Amino acid sequence: MRVINYPNADQRAALLKRPVFERGQIQGDVSVIINCVKSGGDRSLVELTRELDGVKLDRLEVTNEEFEFANDSVPQDLKDAIAVASRNIEKFHDAEDRTGYRVEVMPGVSCWKKWLPIERVGIYVPAGSAPLFSTVLMLAIPARLAGCSEIVLCSPPGRDGSIDATTLFAAGSCGITRAFKIGGAQAVAAMAFGTESVPRVDKIFGPGNQFVTEAKMQVMGTGVAIDMPAGPSEVAVLADDTAIPAFVAADLLSQAEHGPDSQVLLVSTSGDVVEKTLSELEKQLNVLPRREFARRSLANSSAIIVSTLEDGIEFLNEYAPEHLILACRRTDELAEKVRNAGSVFLGNFSCESAGDYAAGTNHTLPTNGAARGYSGLSVLSFMKSVTFQRLTNKGIRSLGPVIETMAAAEGLEAHKYAVSVRLQSAGEN
Amino acid sequence: MRVINYPNADQRAALLKRPVFERGQIQGDVSVIINCVKSGGDRSLVELTRELDGVKLDRLEVTNEEFEFANDSVPQDLKDAIAVASRNIEKFHDAEDRTGYRVEVMPGVSCWKKWLPIERVGIYVPAGSAPLFSTVLMLAIPARLAGCSEIVLCSPPGRDGSIDATTLFAAGSCGITRAFKIGGAQAVAAMAFGTESVPRVDKIFGPGNQFVTEAKMQVMGTGVAIDMPAGPSEVAVLADDTAIPAFVAADLLSQAEHGPDSQVLLVSTSGDVVEKTLSELEKQLNVLPRREFARRSLANSSAIIVSTLEDGIEFLNEYAPEHLILACRRTDELAEKVRNAGSVFLGNFSCESAGDYAAGTNHTLPTNGAARGYSGLSVLSFMKSVTFQRLTNKGIRSLGPVIETMAAAEGLEAHKYAVSVRLQSAGEN
Repeated sequence: MRVINYPNADQRAALLKRPVFERGQIQGDVSVIINCVKSGGDRSLVELTRELDGVKLDRLEVTNEEFEFANDSVPQDLKDAIAVASRNIEKFHDAEDRTGYRVEVMPGVSCWKKWLPIERVGIYVPAGSAPLFSTVLMLAIPARLAGCSEIVLCSPPGRDGSIDATTLFAAGSCGITRAFKIGGAQAVAAMAFGTESVPRVDKIFGPGNQFVTEAKMQVMGTGVAIDMPAGPSEVAVLADDTAIPAFVAADLLSQAEHGPDSQVLLVSTSGDVVEKTLSELEKQLNVLPRREFARRSLANSSAIIVSTLEDGIEFLNEYAPEHLILACRRTDELAEKVRNAGSVFLGNFSCESAGDYAAGTNHTLPTNGAARGYSGLSVLSFMKSVTFQRLTNKGIRSLGPVIETMAAAEGLEAHKYAVSVRLQSAGEN
Repeated sequence: MRVINYPNADQRAALLKRPVFERGQIQGDVSVIINCVKSGGDRSLVELTRELDGVKLDRLEVTNEEFEFANDSVPQDLKDAIAVASRNIEKFHDAEDRTGYRVEVMPGVSCWKKWLPIERVGIYVPAGSAPLFSTVLMLAIPARLAGCSEIVLCSPPGRDGSIDATTLFAAGSCGITRAFKIGGAQAVAAMAFGTESVPRVDKIFGPGNQFVTEAKMQVMGTGVAIDMPAGPSEVAVLADDTAIPAFVAADLLSQAEHGPDSQVLLVSTSGDVVEKTLSELEKQLNVLPRREFARRSLANSSAIIVSTLEDGIEFLNEYAPEHLILACRRTDELAEKVRNAGSVFLGNFSCESAGDYAAGTNHTLPTNGAARGYSGLSVLSFMKSVTFQRLTNKGIRSLGPVIETMAAAEGLEAHKYAVSVRLQSAGEN
């Protein structure tokens, strides 16, 4: 981890830079996979799974027996933990207002807005280096609260041809009944276009590697929606001299262990805390199973010393981190100054892993600076709003001339005439 | 317009098909333009504008004098009409709840969510066959209500090197002070990456031709957000024997006049209404300035006769039209059955052009079936939600073991340790 003291404007600009991912090569590979699934359906999925995951499947869909087997094989303490986390996630997400509203804009002109569930949603859960069953909870619980009528899950099969048991247990506990042993770009294609066994969905959610991300970007133009573009996970910690170096180091490492491209940033008003955090990092790294990932990610990371917390928060607003930990004084006041971040953790006892698993907030958050323009997932991500309007005879008589004038000015005479023909008739009544 | 009586399942499936747009050729052209703007900045923009719009500009940004000149040149009746429309749009959009919420999930675990404005937004307003100043209102009013601190507008210059006066007037009336004479993919690139004169934005909004749409899709992967993928505009009318054929025809035409690829659909329980609408269409077409567009669009359109309104609404839910007009009995009851649509118009006096201009709802809506997974624009489209959490000493003690169990099961030991190190310390206090 580099330490930069009071960076000047040029250094700050350099520190704000994110890694750029070239889509180049992958773009073509993914496009081939998508077209293959589009034309070949289940047969192509089986073939691709054999080729890419090294597993020959007779059946893509998880059976009831497999769900039951998963249920039996998850230890009770993990089931209990998942139950507590689920309750918290449900409680927080369900507090979201989704009732819509109605306005009588003018006499005779009523407009209203309703939130409706997205009917069919697809959830992708990666396996890879760690089975991320917590992602199932973060996607399936808000989907269920939204009222989605069909929730489909895809996750790559392991060498034994089965999906991770805890992933299946978590899916079952959220009411998911349809799960498929499909990974990568081929899973995204299957959900986007549908096959004989995989239902086509209206929106695709979930993290994944570069292939999954590229596939989501490619199918997005074809009528299916996606949650957000994904990038490597990130944490930024703002620390003053009240921060506890052992905590800060643990938080930085819990981001760094995700993968070698994880982004980790420490911004501090205290050189002493930075120094102690660095030595804590070394200590904690040595006993970490995923220390190789963490070490590589830390090698690209920076600790920045700033003169005030306000200066730090200003820098972090420009950076727009996915996770922001405020390990300092006056956290409430500083939280009010946050303008760009995915999720914010206040105080020394609010570690990122609390939000990752069980505090109740969603852990699917915008990364790579996308927090400037994107929200993390919520119940609303699984819904769409539809507007309605009713003009009465009186309404069209008062508003009609306004519409006629504007339509004529845009040169859209049929738009104007749709009003004129009604005004003629409205006048008669 | 084809008439299809009581379509069978195969015919229905065919009727639900939307045109597919091949990105192929355009993809490469747009990518070249984007890279050109990225590397050459303002100089490239001036060059591209000379090449593609046939205008040589000395200055890309609209001056105060040009804003004032536009203000002077718009007729008063149009200004008054824009004022009424603006008031309605503001009134409806401002009713959106954006206060966020707070939940104490467990003792010592508080989570909350805040809506924050997206700081810098870019608005693209096409010129082309008609100057669409109404789009300025539909984008800039919610942006202002959201509290966006910088709103930038790009619109292609005409042959005389100026932006359409009403577009500029509308922009000024919404408080926009920064407008640029840039069109097409180059405008999207300028706003996505910034140049010497054009500020980089966090999210890009607005309709446009295939180049604009493709450019928005391409820059989306680079950290900037976009409103939604755009397709050709659409209307579907559900009519029973209480519908007035002259109104229905006018509504179909006000969609068809947008362009030759506009999608128009009539679904009716009454063969008589369909027949009379077809002959009204011919009558109204003859006097329409943009009849060539309309005629070509109608040639690809269908009128479908169904046996019940329920059957009609079911078909339309699968089709997911951008605009849906309910010109029939029991509109309130049928509106409750709508599951997929951009915006819905109830009753004979609620023409689509009311929503296009002045009723108060937003006219930037999902097309091409995207209404299944996307919302039309609202104030929330110009904001992002950020979540916050605070765990106290007590909070981490009650929730900590749950997090430890889950993190360990995902094989993320640093995530677990971030809790364990706090539990050790929390126990001491």
